[in-house]
Amino acid sequence: MHSATDTRAQAQPRYSGIPTFMRVPYTTRLEDFDIGIVGVPFDGGVTARPGARYGPREIRNMSSMTRAIHHVTRFNPFAACRVADVGDVPFTDVFHLENSHADIRRFLAPIYAAGKRTLVAGGDHSITFPIFQAMAPREPLGMVHIDAHTDTWDDFIGSKFSHGSPFRRAVEAGLLDPKRTVQIGIRGAQNSDEGWRYSLDSGMRVIFIEEFDRMGVEAAIAEARRVVGAGPAYLSVDVDGLDPVYAPGTGTPEIGGLSTRETLALLRGLEGLDLRGADVVEVAPPYDPSGNTALLGATLMYECLCLLARAWEMGR
Amino acid sequence: MHSATDTRAQAQPRYSGIPTFMRVPYTTRLEDFDIGIVGVPFDGGVTARPGARYGPREIRNMSSMTRAIHHVTRFNPFAACRVADVGDVPFTDVFHLENSHADIRRFLAPIYAAGKRTLVAGGDHSITFPIFQAMAPREPLGMVHIDAHTDTWDDFIGSKFSHGSPFRRAVEAGLLDPKRTVQIGIRGAQNSDEGWRYSLDSGMRVIFIEEFDRMGVEAAIAEARRVVGAGPAYLSVDVDGLDPVYAPGTGTPEIGGLSTRETLALLRGLEGLDLRGADVVEVAPPYDPSGNTALLGATLMYECLCLLARAWEMGR
Amino acid sequence: MHSATDTRAQAQPRYSGIPTFMRVPYTTRLEDFDIGIVGVPFDGGVTARPGARYGPREIRNMSSMTRAIHHVTRFNPFAACRVADVGDVPFTDVFHLENSHADIRRFLAPIYAAGKRTLVAGGDHSITFPIFQAMAPREPLGMVHIDAHTDTWDDFIGSKFSHGSPFRRAVEAGLLDPKRTVQIGIRGAQNSDEGWRYSLDSGMRVIFIEEFDRMGVEAAIAEARRVVGAGPAYLSVDVDGLDPVYAPGTGTPEIGGLSTRETLALLRGLEGLDLRGADVVEVAPPYDPSGNTALLGATLMYECLCLLARAWEMGR
Amino acid sequence: MHSATDTRAQAQPRYSGIPTFMRVPYTTRLEDFDIGIVGVPFDGGVTARPGARYGPREIRNMSSMTRAIHHVTRFNPFAACRVADVGDVPFTDVFHLENSHADIRRFLAPIYAAGKRTLVAGGDHSITFPIFQAMAPREPLGMVHIDAHTDTWDDFIGSKFSHGSPFRRAVEAGLLDPKRTVQIGIRGAQNSDEGWRYSLDSGMRVIFIEEFDRMGVEAAIAEARRVVGAGPAYLSVDVDGLDPVYAPGTGTPEIGGLSTRETLALLRGLEGLDLRGADVVEVAPPYDPSGNTALLGATLMYECLCLLARAWEMGR
Amino acid sequence: MHSATDTRAQAQPRYSGIPTFMRVPYTTRLEDFDIGIVGVPFDGGVTARPGARYGPREIRNMSSMTRAIHHVTRFNPFAACRVADVGDVPFTDVFHLENSHADIRRFLAPIYAAGKRTLVAGGDHSITFPIFQAMAPREPLGMVHIDAHTDTWDDFIGSKFSHGSPFRRAVEAGLLDPKRTVQIGIRGAQNSDEGWRYSLDSGMRVIFIEEFDRMGVEAAIAEARRVVGAGPAYLSVDVDGLDPVYAPGTGTPEIGGLSTRETLALLRGLEGLDLRGADVVEVAPPYDPSGNTALLGATLMYECLCLLARAWEMGR
Amino acid sequence: MHSATDTRAQAQPRYSGIPTFMRVPYTTRLEDFDIGIVGVPFDGGVTARPGARYGPREIRNMSSMTRAIHHVTRFNPFAACRVADVGDVPFTDVFHLENSHADIRRFLAPIYAAGKRTLVAGGDHSITFPIFQAMAPREPLGMVHIDAHTDTWDDFIGSKFSHGSPFRRAVEAGLLDPKRTVQIGIRGAQNSDEGWRYSLDSGMRVIFIEEFDRMGVEAAIAEARRVVGAGPAYLSVDVDGLDPVYAPGTGTPEIGGLSTRETLALLRGLEGLDLRGADVVEVAPPYDPSGNTALLGATLMYECLCLLARAWEMGR
Repeated sequence: MHSATDTRAQAQPRYSGIPTFMRVPYTTRLEDFDIGIVGVPFDGGVTARPGARYGPREIRNMSSMTRAIHHVTRFNPFAACRVADVGDVPFTDVFHLENSHADIRRFLAPIYAAGKRTLVAGGDHSITFPIFQAMAPREPLGMVHIDAHTDTWDDFIGSKFSHGSPFRRAVEAGLLDPKRTVQIGIRGAQNSDEGWRYSLDSGMRVIFIEEFDRMGVEAAIAEARRVVGAGPAYLSVDVDGLDPVYAPGTGTPEIGGLSTRETLALLRGLEGLDLRGADVVEVAPPYDPSGNTALLGATLMYECLCLLARAWEMGR
Repeated sequence: MHSATDTRAQAQPRYSGIPTFMRVPYTTRLEDFDIGIVGVPFDGGVTARPGARYGPREIRNMSSMTRAIHHVTRFNPFAACRVADVGDVPFTDVFHLENSHADIRRFLAPIYAAGKRTLVAGGDHSITFPIFQAMAPREPLGMVHIDAHTDTWDDFIGSKFSHGSPFRRAVEAGLLDPKRTVQIGIRGAQNSDEGWRYSLDSGMRVIFIEEFDRMGVEAAIAEARRVVGAGPAYLSVDVDGLDPVYAPGTGTPEIGGLSTRETLALLRGLEGLDLRGADVVEVAPPYDPSGNTALLGATLMYECLCLLARAWEMGR
Repeated sequence: MHSATDTRAQAQPRYSGIPTFMRVPYTTRLEDFDIGIVGVPFDGGVTARPGARYGPREIRNMSSMTRAIHHVTRFNPFAACRVADVGDVPFTDVFHLENSHADIRRFLAPIYAAGKRTLVAGGDHSITFPIFQAMAPREPLGMVHIDAHTDTWDDFIGSKFSHGSPFRRAVEAGLLDPKRTVQIGIRGAQNSDEGWRYSLDSGMRVIFIEEFDRMGVEAAIAEARRVVGAGPAYLSVDVDGLDPVYAPGTGTPEIGGLSTRETLALLRGLEGLDLRGADVVEVAPPYDPSGNTALLGATLMYECLCLLARAWEMGR
Repeated sequence: MHSATDTRAQAQPRYSGIPTFMRVPYTTRLEDFDIGIVGVPFDGGVTARPGARYGPREIRNMSSMTRAIHHVTRFNPFAACRVADVGDVPFTDVFHLENSHADIRRFLAPIYAAGKRTLVAGGDHSITFPIFQAMAPREPLGMVHIDAHTDTWDDFIGSKFSHGSPFRRAVEAGLLDPKRTVQIGIRGAQNSDEGWRYSLDSGMRVIFIEEFDRMGVEAAIAEARRVVGAGPAYLSVDVDGLDPVYAPGTGTPEIGGLSTRETLALLRGLEGLDLRGADVVEVAPPYDPSGNTALLGATLMYECLCLLARAWEMGR
Repeated sequence: MHSATDTRAQAQPRYSGIPTFMRVPYTTRLEDFDIGIVGVPFDGGVTARPGARYGPREIRNMSSMTRAIHHVTRFNPFAACRVADVGDVPFTDVFHLENSHADIRRFLAPIYAAGKRTLVAGGDHSITFPIFQAMAPREPLGMVHIDAHTDTWDDFIGSKFSHGSPFRRAVEAGLLDPKRTVQIGIRGAQNSDEGWRYSLDSGMRVIFIEEFDRMGVEAAIAEARRVVGAGPAYLSVDVDGLDPVYAPGTGTPEIGGLSTRETLALLRGLEGLDLRGADVVEVAPPYDPSGNTALLGATLMYECLCLLARAWEMGR
Repeated sequence: MHSATDTRAQAQPRYSGIPTFMRVPYTTRLEDFDIGIVGVPFDGGVTARPGARYGPREIRNMSSMTRAIHHVTRFNPFAACRVADVGDVPFTDVFHLENSHADIRRFLAPIYAAGKRTLVAGGDHSITFPIFQAMAPREPLGMVHIDAHTDTWDDFIGSKFSHGSPFRRAVEAGLLDPKRTVQIGIRGAQNSDEGWRYSLDSGMRVIFIEEFDRMGVEAAIAEARRVVGAGPAYLSVDVDGLDPVYAPGTGTPEIGGLSTRETLALLRGLEGLDLRGADVVEVAPPYDPSGNTALLGATLMYECLCLLARAWEMGR
């Protein structure tokens, strides 16, 4: 709706205008952007409360509240590279989990093939596996994963591809390197410990919330950087990693999670990692009467965008 | 939790006790009930807002507000026959529409085979097709169908079994007699007129809301009775048939619908039909901040129960 | 906060100022008002959802939206007589139903003894019995009663004074003349028909909602006027007489009730009755996320005030 | 985001994609559309509850629920002419009412100068006066005005341009012909009768809700057509014309208003009028927890669009 | 609904099935369980906002989100002992505080007499006194009490048994040993300091939130264990001990409270105490639009259950 | 409504009575109070979400939950001095920012001229500049300012007096001493860094939330006291200084803010400063479905009142 360096949209009142992500230009032309923000309005992989299909819509809405210059780093991602809203993944079959995943792969693969990086707004966490497939990294990626759940369970109520399984599938497919993977914020009882065991047995570094609480955010950052190392990596943020007071609008809330201040510090501590992509998932607006979860999602996406833009600058 | 004639549960305060439907006893023993109330917590067939999977839960909750003796007829369905809550359909695969439908068939078929009648709380409207399959009527059923939509569309975003298609499938499968089918409350723009055309071409009697408004509820009742006739019939109530002020908690609201008074009068006018089953569908609690939609669903189920109990008495 | 003829408060923005009822002056001096508006923040008589104790608070709030001149009659009650907010009944024991009723009697009796008329904001409907006791009319009053329930049940879960019983108690105490009582809007199943029977057997005219629907509002007005006649009378409006879409914030909602237009017409049709008092009860703000029920309560109170002010003019 | 005849956007799931109005293409190029849909996110003219500045945002959101083919007329406005979302009026000064009105004029005037017709989503009702100014009709326009208030008051708390005054200003400016103006749904007490008097004295036909109730919607349509006649006209719909159960999300709700069915019938009855523009105003999302008001606004806009598209066809 | 070792219910989707507490079997047969979970739907003892009568209902609902194996200890309480939902206390008189307390005693006494332990979902805090009475411990119990208030006030607005007094009454009755009692999280202004003084004067260890903040959760645990010692003890958790962001759905919120992480750590630190019973009280669903308070209540109950099951194992 | 030392109002149930601030007497007689609590229902200076005009109304409502004796200091401000609710600023022109500011000045100036101190409930933050003007301090005031934003931006969308600018204007006008000003909790991206730069360049001490997090609340208090020193000072609390989980009901939320415990500690640490006035601003009830923000606002006002009453005692 305006050129990529046009900041007039962001200068309009926050309630004004058709809401693209952070009010960046909308385009699907690959030559017009460096980092593409993508919506994946899909929640066909949830096991409890649905609604994340409306995540991109409400995150776009609330992202009008975000702005350009980071108050800690004074970095402006929109000045550093060309950022576009490339729209939502179009779905051809929303009634079968695997077919939806195929739609996601189909839409994203050309973007990655063209060397672009993406910031994705979910949708439920099942979408990260097809994102990894679309990225088709030459070597398995490292990952920083913020979540209440390890998402490394196996089969669940009829499928191996629900939002409880993406990272097990990604490891099995050689897309994710468990030894370069750190999971932060894990908590909550389970009916089986197979997910926790898979994460540990495969070599992932699992920082349960209790360990996080003891070690503090600085040590957690150091540990995350040590685990992920210098190689290409991915950042996946499930908003249920935060305490549900910060993110009531989510499908599988677990009390006792991260605070916003901890999460922001954690993300900022990842600067310099070679991030090839990032996502913020599980924002479920029907359970978000105050709109705070969408605001959280939008703000975390801004923080991720800063990380991606810095990584893009470095990688150029 | 008590015998079928025990009314102590209903005498307790309405906020008290584990909420079975209308506080009737819970049982899965076929010999213990005449009419079984069943929950089908499934919304994998919706095309817009999800959440009807929580319909049975919240309808059960609000059904504690219902009571025994009908204020117009002074009929007490709980005195007329044995009514039980037979629980929710257990699902083995919630990620694939057709497999969920198979679960529904599997759970319900033995109940019908034993000659019981059911009152179902949805869930989205896609469930009515597997209900019909489970009923396996010897001859196609007649039907009174209250809805904003004809639900006779064909393929939609990847499936022929979404909540926009159950009655087209039922006609094709010889389970529903379109010439003995009346659809009431239809309205709302569509991107294609194929559903409206199918209903009309197949011989269904479609009473759009505008015709209903002109003819009045008494004439609509007469027309419904004329169309359905004396044969075995089914009653399917989609709460989006009502105006969304009465049913905000639904997935595909259309303004300009039936009022509660019209709907209650309509249902009461169906007494004497040979109803073999009934359902109330598309209550989506995440969109129901006041709880009124669940209360509506529970009260409409009570009205349906009165109809079914009368039909059961007649058929005995 | 200003003299009784001071209209400056009503000229301020609706969100401004300490909210007395309709922004009239607050006073407890009997010589300063003709009609006193009283809050009775009590819900210790409810049998289902509590919250009406916050009714006066939120009705006061929303009553800032009301104004002076009636658009149909061009009558201005504030010009016709001195109207004051006399505050809330102070309670000395909120844990025992009968003791709270005594507090109500104690506060109101001097007001009636001084020849004032009152407009009461409830609270639950149990309060109308102590109001009648405080009025201590020389002869039993007539009454127009708008409600989903007859409130003529007997003992309920431990007391004869719950919100299901006030009018049975009032008849027994010789305070209410059942033959000059009309109940409008009655509906909803019950576990026992004793209330309906008591109303009919005692001679009350019960207009169930179905009869109301058939006869229309004009005939209902005529019937109400015929029943109540020229003697002293009371007007009691339970907001659950309306359909819960108009009054979701109430304790015992019943679908299928009166509309706002019908209710307003009904009330306006009562002009000329010798009303000695009126109440609007069962506004339960915790169940009123949109605030519409409090707005309804405030507007119905304004209509009642017009009726009372006209009756006061006539009686002067 | 797609060409004007591209219906792919409307075929995507309703929760998908960047929400333009009714998912039509976004463009500001005058040569690309016949009817432009415009958002005016401004509520600096309200006298009570603010929030209508978020009206365009949420109406766009909910308009994804609308579709193409009208179920009564089978008319498809998107096939009849080129419809575009031309974005929101950009504001340069939101802190002074008149300056904001100037911004509105500045944005719209070129559109009208180019012979386009507009459908506007407000914003509060004060915006209709600058819309009229921007239209600068050669002769005063006729108008169908649906509202609880006549909006013909004079000065209010500091300005003659609040949302209580637009039509008085428009008459004074020779932009609106009071004798060809009909106001429908008027009701609610006022602190002064000057607005009612101005409407009547200037020759407007005011149909208070009570008269509407008595005459019925068909007669109201006939009367509206008679008053407005064959000349150029405008259609202005304030959602508070409807009962607040249908439109809780508004700034100045008045109980006892129009129903959705009445409003839809009324609008459809205006087909054939020479409508040069239309607006739907006073949708205030912060007061709309269920989202129903935004859905109402979007659906009424679709109905208005059908009227405008027909008028455009006729005028071509 | 299934045998006590049947975990099929917990394997169903979380939105499925009639919601018993944590989906354990419902039974009232004393021989079928070791630990009974009981609902006490009563809020007749509150002094401000009512609604806790709906606590058991919504906690049951949300408890479907809980699961079996604790992520810190890997303990599975359902494997350690037989846990049952024994339903809600039936009330015979809800209008008089003391009579309701008698109902509570009557229902619970046989359970304790049979040597069972209970986990109670309130209800307001007044219920803990009749629970203590029903337990009738041979020696006064110790207690860990988490709350914003000491609940040791004396008479309040008409009764000595409101939710501000249970522990004063329990000390007076010789049921609670103040010297083995620790109160954690206390804060908030009061109109009188008599409660604070009673706690201190009677020998209770009161950890105001400010002291808790300074000492940290580990020291607080140590202090709690020191105070309570090895004797039989009770655990009472008022959710208003947490900050109202974690528990908005409560009757007497006080800002500045415990966090979920602190509360979880605190509870886990109590393992090994000889707990004879526990309760989680003051969950008031009408004030809980996001449902987070009920989720908190359910999760805290799961933590309490783990403690009780360990104590039961030890005590066997 | 009662004399200033009358505590009967505070002894009534919290849901009872016309809600003045903290249930103190209402008066506008200057001789009747030492500290006046004032509402400024104005949000015409906001740049995003409106609604703070309803702040005084809902803070008054929720302030019924506050009480007299501080649990840490055992100080009772109502015993220390005469506190009154002096009502809301009356507005004569709400449509032009500067004219509203003039109304504020006009109402407050006589109060300050009479030597009274005020505690103000906003309204948006733009009101603090006219408050400073009304105070007309002989020397520039020092200030403790809690906020997410420095509010030292210059022109914004048409005015230099929006809620983003009050403290720049106050410095320019010689009313505020930037060198005795500390801003705490600042965070959030901006489209320009001019506000941050102005604060720093003018000599204000800006404690961004990250520095606050590192230094801790005790060090922040020490720094605040050092900066402000012994001279006359003002305390301005924008509730968006807190994390939006604590204050969702605000116009410009920024995640990652202060907690309630930190804020309470911070305020208590200011005891002894020579505070001449204080305000709590930006409570926007339409965005506060749980009411927690209004409760927060009321409780912070109570803490401010304690500070002011102590300062008044010292200064006497």
